[in-house]
Amino acid sequence: MSTRTEIGSLGEFGLIRHLTKQIELKNESSIKGVGDDAAVLSYPEKQILVTTDLLLEGIHFDLTYVPLKHLGYKSAVVNFSDVYAMNGQPKQITVSLGISKRFSVEDLDEFYSGLKLACEIYGVDMVGGDTSASLTGLTISITCIGEGDKEKITYRSGAKDTDIVCVSGDLGAAFMGLQLLEREKRLFKDEKEFTPDFGGKEYLLERQLKPEARKDVIEALANAGIQPTSMIDVSDGLSSELLHLSRESNVGFRIYEERIPIDFQTASMAEQFNMNLITAAMNGGEDYELLFTVPLAQHDAVSQLKGIKVIGRVTRPDLGNYLVGRDGGEVELQAQGWNSLS
Amino acid sequence: MSTRTEIGSLGEFGLIRHLTKQIELKNESSIKGVGDDAAVLSYPEKQILVTTDLLLEGIHFDLTYVPLKHLGYKSAVVNFSDVYAMNGQPKQITVSLGISKRFSVEDLDEFYSGLKLACEIYGVDMVGGDTSASLTGLTISITCIGEGDKEKITYRSGAKDTDIVCVSGDLGAAFMGLQLLEREKRLFKDEKEFTPDFGGKEYLLERQLKPEARKDVIEALANAGIQPTSMIDVSDGLSSELLHLSRESNVGFRIYEERIPIDFQTASMAEQFNMNLITAAMNGGEDYELLFTVPLAQHDAVSQLKGIKVIGRVTRPDLGNYLVGRDGGEVELQAQGWNSLS
Repeated sequence: MSTRTEIGSLGEFGLIRHLTKQIELKNESSIKGVGDDAAVLSYPEKQILVTTDLLLEGIHFDLTYVPLKHLGYKSAVVNFSDVYAMNGQPKQITVSLGISKRFSVEDLDEFYSGLKLACEIYGVDMVGGDTSASLTGLTISITCIGEGDKEKITYRSGAKDTDIVCVSGDLGAAFMGLQLLEREKRLFKDEKEFTPDFGGKEYLLERQLKPEARKDVIEALANAGIQPTSMIDVSDGLSSELLHLSRESNVGFRIYEERIPIDFQTASMAEQFNMNLITAAMNGGEDYELLFTVPLAQHDAVSQLKGIKVIGRVTRPDLGNYLVGRDGGEVELQAQGWNSLS
Repeated sequence: MSTRTEIGSLGEFGLIRHLTKQIELKNESSIKGVGDDAAVLSYPEKQILVTTDLLLEGIHFDLTYVPLKHLGYKSAVVNFSDVYAMNGQPKQITVSLGISKRFSVEDLDEFYSGLKLACEIYGVDMVGGDTSASLTGLTISITCIGEGDKEKITYRSGAKDTDIVCVSGDLGAAFMGLQLLEREKRLFKDEKEFTPDFGGKEYLLERQLKPEARKDVIEALANAGIQPTSMIDVSDGLSSELLHLSRESNVGFRIYEERIPIDFQTASMAEQFNMNLITAAMNGGEDYELLFTVPLAQHDAVSQLKGIKVIGRVTRPDLGNYLVGRDGGEVELQAQGWNSLS
C-alpha cells in the first residue's frame, strides 16, 4: 500500500524544505542555493546563458501515461538542451511548481527524483524556485542558467551561405512515441489500469518520455575543434528550426530528403499508422537533437563524428528554403511544427 | 469599440515577436535578449542574483478587479523586490506566460505595457521567455537576474544578537486593499460593470494593485554607508519574515507593537472591517517592504533615514520570537502569513 501525504499538511515552507533538503551544490559558480530571497551565482570568466520553459498539464504533458519521475527528468532536460544549443554548459536551474490538491507529497517526491537525476547526470545544481497551489493541474516553470566562452557561444544568426547543415541523432521518434501513447490511451480509456504492451517500440517511448540533451555532441564538436557557425535545438520540428536559422542568419536552405536520419522503429510505426514518414521527421518536434551549420571546409571532420549527419547546405536567402526529394523535386519548407497557440 | 485579435491568428512565434518587438537592451550586462535558444549575459565583476515567482490566476490574482497592466507591473516588481532584499540591483527578467483562449492579443499588450513600464522605471531588460496556450486562466512565471557586490550581498543568515531590527515604509495596507477589493467584488457580483467608489482609500488600492519595490531604500542605505547584517522582503507578512530570519540567523526577536509603522488609511479600514489592526500589519503580506537588521552602533544613522523605522531588537535564539504589546505583554510570533498550500 502506498501512503498519501497531503501537501497542505506540510505548508508552503515545509514543502520546499522537504523537497530541497538533500540538495548539495556542486558547481563552483553556485554560491548560494535554495533558502534566501535569491540564489547567488558567480561567473567571473564566462558569459551566462539563461533560458526558461513553461510546461502545463493538458497542453504539454498528459499524466495518464507520463510517469511523474520521467516528467521531472524531461522538464529539466529540455532546458539543458537550450543551453547546449548555444554551445554552452548548463549549471543551475530554478524550479517553480503550481500544484493542485490532486497531488500528494509522494507525487512531488517522484517528480523531484526525476529532476534530481537529470541534474546529477548533467552536472547541474538546483538553486531555487517557488511552490504554490493551483486551481487545476500541474504547472512547471524551469529556468536554466549555463555558461559559455564568449568566443564559442553559438547563435542562430551565424550561418553563411557557403556552410553545410548538420543534425545529430535521428528525427521523428519522439513524435511517433507520442502517437503511440495517444493511441493506447484511447484504447485503454475504459480500463482502470494503463498497461499496454509496447514491445519493440521501446525506443519511441524513451524518446518521448525520457529524452536526453546532446551534451555528448557539444563535447564531440569541441574535441574535434569544430565551431558551429549557427545552432538551434530541434524542439518544434526540423522545418520550424531551419526557418528560425534562415530568418536569423538571412540565408536559405536546401535539405536532402534521403539524408534525413530516421530510426527503424520510427519508419515502422509510420507505416503502421499510415503516416508520411518524412512529414513526421520534418515536423514531429520534441527530438531535442542539435541542428547546426559548419563551414564547408569542415565537411570531412564533421562527417567523421559518430551520430552526426550532413543533411544539406546553406544558400543565399533569395533561393528560399526547400526539401529536395529523392526524385529531385523540391518542396518549400513550412513551419508545421507543434503550435500550442493555434 | 475596442478590437479583439485572437492569439491563434499570430501563432506562437508571431505572438512572441509582436510582444517583444520594441524591446531594447539597456544594461551592459545584457549581451543578447529575446530571439535565440537562450539569453546571453555577462557579469565579470559582480555576483549574480537569481529569483523566480510563479503567479496563477485564481490563486495569486483575480482579474475581476486587477487590471492587466497593473498585473504586469506587479509581476515584475515582486521579483525586483527579491533582488533588492539581497542588497542587489535587478538587471534582467524572463517572462513565461500560459494563456487561455479567453485572452486576446490586446489583453497581452496591456499586460506587457505594465511589464515594460516596471522594467523602464527600475532599469531592467526583458531578455527572454516562453509563451504557451493554457487550458484555463493565466499563468505568469517571471525569473529575475540581478547583480550585487560580493561583500555587500545580504543574506537572511547574518543577524547578530546585538543587532536592531528595521523595516521600511508601512505594513498591512496591501492586505487591507485586498479586503476592500474582495468586499466590493461581493457587492458587485450581480452587476455587469465593476465601478465601485474607492474615494479616500486610494493608498490601500495602490499598495495592493501597483506595489513598488524599495530600490530607494537600498540606495539610501548605501549612501548612508549602512550595510545590513541580514535582510528579507516582506511578502508573506512581517511575522513570517521574522521567523525566516530567526531560523536562518539562529537568533530571536523582540518586536515592539507601538513601533510597527501603519498608515492612517490602513487603521481606518481595519476599524471599518472590525479587524485587529496589529494582526493585519503583522500577517497581512504583499507589503514588499524591506525588513533588515543593522548593528546597534548604527541605530542613530539608520533612524535618520526617511521612511525607515527601528521596530525591535535581535536576541539570543533561546529567548524566542515575541511581539511586545503596549502594555508590556508578550505574544509569541507565528507564521500566519498567506499560505496558498494550506
